[in-house]
Amino acid sequence: MSGNEHKRDAARAVVLLSGGMDSAVVLATAIRDRFEAHALTVRYGQRHAVELSAARAVAAALGASEHVEIDVDLARFGGSALTAPGEIPRDVGPRHGIPSTYVPARNAVLLALGASLAEALGARDLFVGVSAVDYSGYPDCRPEFIRAFEEALRLGTRAGATGAPLRLHAPLLAMSKADTVRAGLELGVDFGLTRSCYNPDESGAPCHACDACRLRALGFEGAGVPDPLARRYQR
Amino acid sequence: MSGNEHKRDAARAVVLLSGGMDSAVVLATAIRDRFEAHALTVRYGQRHAVELSAARAVAAALGASEHVEIDVDLARFGGSALTAPGEIPRDVGPRHGIPSTYVPARNAVLLALGASLAEALGARDLFVGVSAVDYSGYPDCRPEFIRAFEEALRLGTRAGATGAPLRLHAPLLAMSKADTVRAGLELGVDFGLTRSCYNPDESGAPCHACDACRLRALGFEGAGVPDPLARRYQR
Repeated sequence: MSGNEHKRDAARAVVLLSGGMDSAVVLATAIRDRFEAHALTVRYGQRHAVELSAARAVAAALGASEHVEIDVDLARFGGSALTAPGEIPRDVGPRHGIPSTYVPARNAVLLALGASLAEALGARDLFVGVSAVDYSGYPDCRPEFIRAFEEALRLGTRAGATGAPLRLHAPLLAMSKADTVRAGLELGVDFGLTRSCYNPDESGAPCHACDACRLRALGFEGAGVPDPLARRYQR
Repeated sequence: MSGNEHKRDAARAVVLLSGGMDSAVVLATAIRDRFEAHALTVRYGQRHAVELSAARAVAAALGASEHVEIDVDLARFGGSALTAPGEIPRDVGPRHGIPSTYVPARNAVLLALGASLAEALGARDLFVGVSAVDYSGYPDCRPEFIRAFEEALRLGTRAGATGAPLRLHAPLLAMSKADTVRAGLELGVDFGLTRSCYNPDESGAPCHACDACRLRALGFEGAGVPDPLARRYQR
């Protein structure tokens, strides 16, 4: 659990790491801010297991002090296209309502698990990569939710009750996907290690059709740089 | 997932069920209130696995429509005497501060998982057995926490975003342990099926020394009835 030698005095933080591009940028941000970063990947039964190996690669490349993986099988509760067998809808074009890939209360589960690890480690800071572009569709990516959850944790944890409440950091909240790409490149994130697709094939190649692929492409387009992953899986 | 014939029109509810006496009374309350009750037991790595078989027996005896069990190994995060190997402290006498059996952010994890199942089932009601007697020590048993968590779920779930937020019910909040015993007996709860001890021996016999045993004994004493479990495991 101890950090590297040169990080001995750094404060610990927990960073939720999915293997996607957003949480990679968040991990790089926490490390830039001199936190001893403990990455936490929650395997909640998502279909895109290729993201999980991506999370490992990203944690290693960016220098996380530790990478913790934990399983909680939300897939058996049902209620989401993201964890169910079958087709992922190709949500192209403007979005109406909440996407079918919404996983019931997913971010509440992720944040609660992140808070549990943070308290166990004595960390006061918890980072999450929810983003502005997503929150029009996913209610658990809204800033109001993040603030309300922080307040609930202040009231319902030992950390909060003893005057040192957890701080939730969502550094991408106000950033577009293009901003996220730019920030990541500045921080040295290798986006070739990250995965976004909800529906990759057996080789890990992205489908270029799902919502996550579409947002990723818009991000690189907006930043005016090529996606190293798209180059690798050129169709 | 479907309820019994005579419950066809009942609204679904999720009830967090630990196998202890409090959540048994809560399950009986939800069923009395004509909910189709889906019991959820979270195996979070607690030492007292005997509680888990108790949860199954209680769910069956009270007539839960379904009993879902899910694993999430909080024990590997550390930070609690309840999930760690070694002695459980014998917290006899008045309590100062937060007990060592506090599990970091446990109730946040349980409520988030309960909310996830509720959303997946289309249930609007989530029941939890946090109790007045406990909340002097455990911050995640305080009414303020329950209200704040409900608000976070309102903001961060599809249910909330579509105008049908989850309602958190904590019917024992204002009740003493003796009140809980009395309410359970009125509702036909067989307390002989429930388990409370943090530190049972191999046969499942309670230690009569841990905090949970002490609270349970006070509850039956206060209600003026014998604990059927104490009779079975007479020392």
